[in-house]
Amino acid sequence: MSDAAFAGVDWGTSALRVWAFDAAGLVLAERRSDEGMASLSPADFAGVLQGHLAALALPTTVPVLMCGMVGSRQGWQEARYVDCPAGIDGLVSGAVRVTSSERDIRILPGLALRDPLTPDVMRGEETKLLGLLQGAPEFSGLICMPGTHTKWVRLEQGRVATFRTTMVGELYALLTTHSILRLNIDADRVRVEPDAHFRDGVADGLTSPGSFTSRLFQLRADGLLNGTGGEVAAARLSGFLIGVGLADGLQLASTAETAVWLLAEGRLTALYAAALSVAGRAPSVVDANVAAQ
Amino acid sequence: MSDAAFAGVDWGTSALRVWAFDAAGLVLAERRSDEGMASLSPADFAGVLQGHLAALALPTTVPVLMCGMVGSRQGWQEARYVDCPAGIDGLVSGAVRVTSSERDIRILPGLALRDPLTPDVMRGEETKLLGLLQGAPEFSGLICMPGTHTKWVRLEQGRVATFRTTMVGELYALLTTHSILRLNIDADRVRVEPDAHFRDGVADGLTSPGSFTSRLFQLRADGLLNGTGGEVAAARLSGFLIGVGLADGLQLASTAETAVWLLAEGRLTALYAAALSVAGRAPSVVDANVAAQ
Repeated sequence: MSDAAFAGVDWGTSALRVWAFDAAGLVLAERRSDEGMASLSPADFAGVLQGHLAALALPTTVPVLMCGMVGSRQGWQEARYVDCPAGIDGLVSGAVRVTSSERDIRILPGLALRDPLTPDVMRGEETKLLGLLQGAPEFSGLICMPGTHTKWVRLEQGRVATFRTTMVGELYALLTTHSILRLNIDADRVRVEPDAHFRDGVADGLTSPGSFTSRLFQLRADGLLNGTGGEVAAARLSGFLIGVGLADGLQLASTAETAVWLLAEGRLTALYAAALSVAGRAPSVVDANVAAQ
Repeated sequence: MSDAAFAGVDWGTSALRVWAFDAAGLVLAERRSDEGMASLSPADFAGVLQGHLAALALPTTVPVLMCGMVGSRQGWQEARYVDCPAGIDGLVSGAVRVTSSERDIRILPGLALRDPLTPDVMRGEETKLLGLLQGAPEFSGLICMPGTHTKWVRLEQGRVATFRTTMVGELYALLTTHSILRLNIDADRVRVEPDAHFRDGVADGLTSPGSFTSRLFQLRADGLLNGTGGEVAAARLSGFLIGVGLADGLQLASTAETAVWLLAEGRLTALYAAALSVAGRAPSVVDANVAAQ
């Protein structure tokens, strides 16, 4: 692949994605794999990466830029967090070169919020912000990146002013897989849609986040007493959790008029867009796949 | 055991407890087993029970009174919920006789709250209230029964006016066993004490229950950024969850002066007593083992 200027790698706990980019930053080719950090031992890292680069026919002269858990203390080589507030320049200058490889492989650092009351960290998601800021370097607004750990980021004139991680996706998975709610909800079979039950759950989460511990069991009781089915329970639970997370994340908005941008992919886009509308925050949607490039 | 007047059985999902009582309701002997409903098939129920009754030398003429999941739809025989508000008379008259046994075996019903907004159910815990009400038939106040599913019950002149289940214990177990927080907290080794970290967590949960989804990840970030250890993280998490549950359960208090009674056993007693004190509600403690008799 002679046009390739550099390779980009997002290497997380459970997945690996590799892109070949041209000099203008456009994607020439992509590979996805489930060879996440957690499934590998350190001795495997170099070989796994080289295998994917070779499959993309990228010569060893092409530099590689990586992000994600690959740069954590338990990763290939630690790239220490850059403290917020931080701009793109801080992320790029904080990249570390992998010393065990002759190839030019650099790992981008994550972001840290060293607030004593609300400490927080991010690794990987920050590169989606880089993509967004390429097109609008002085952007100000609140970004929502839905996922296992939904990230809320307030950008001020192109810099990360603050951010907050809400554990919404992980809570949904935990509750439907391991809690007593698994008896009501078959998470493998239920696909939550942004329907009326979901929106009811969102509204409830926004207005009554403090009823968290009782709402969960009420979903169970509703099934026992009223025969409410798993699809309805799943929609209400998903909506409730997303609503609670929204109330949490929206605390980062500096004013009621702060624009909210939804940086999402796949089915979470529709759910979060509907949830933000229930919260009276019609979001602008940015495709995360585009932003990541 | 010739003095025995009746046998009491608490048969739940994961455990079985059998007591021999005399005519005055005093315990003559007790057996505990992990033969919970979930580990047995219906064909086993009669034999397992008979084994324990025989081990207590209880003749077949001694009647048996059971409570717990044994009376659920998936149990031995369904004893349908009695609706709140309900008194002791309703519980006793709602008992069903096990038709597949010649012995006099009755199963007490659970309690149901058929509120469309806050539906709830209880099976087993209500017998602890019976014990409490034996000594004070016209009792009024708010009862807190800590556990996997902490139950809050408002009694008015000896009747269950309303109740609320908060999923606090299960959330702690889920988060420390299956979530990313397991990387910070070794739940098998950490034993939470009502120390300053625990009380800080309680205060935070009481004042900021709406930060539920972000507080969880902040515990993880605090470990990564500040090296905060697992014991501190466990104390803060436990305190936070109990605090959030307290704010939830205390909504059942009819006035700020409503007395709070803690019906607990084991180590949860000290944790909930400390948490209630942080909430400005110095509780009266009742030993649950005594109350169950």
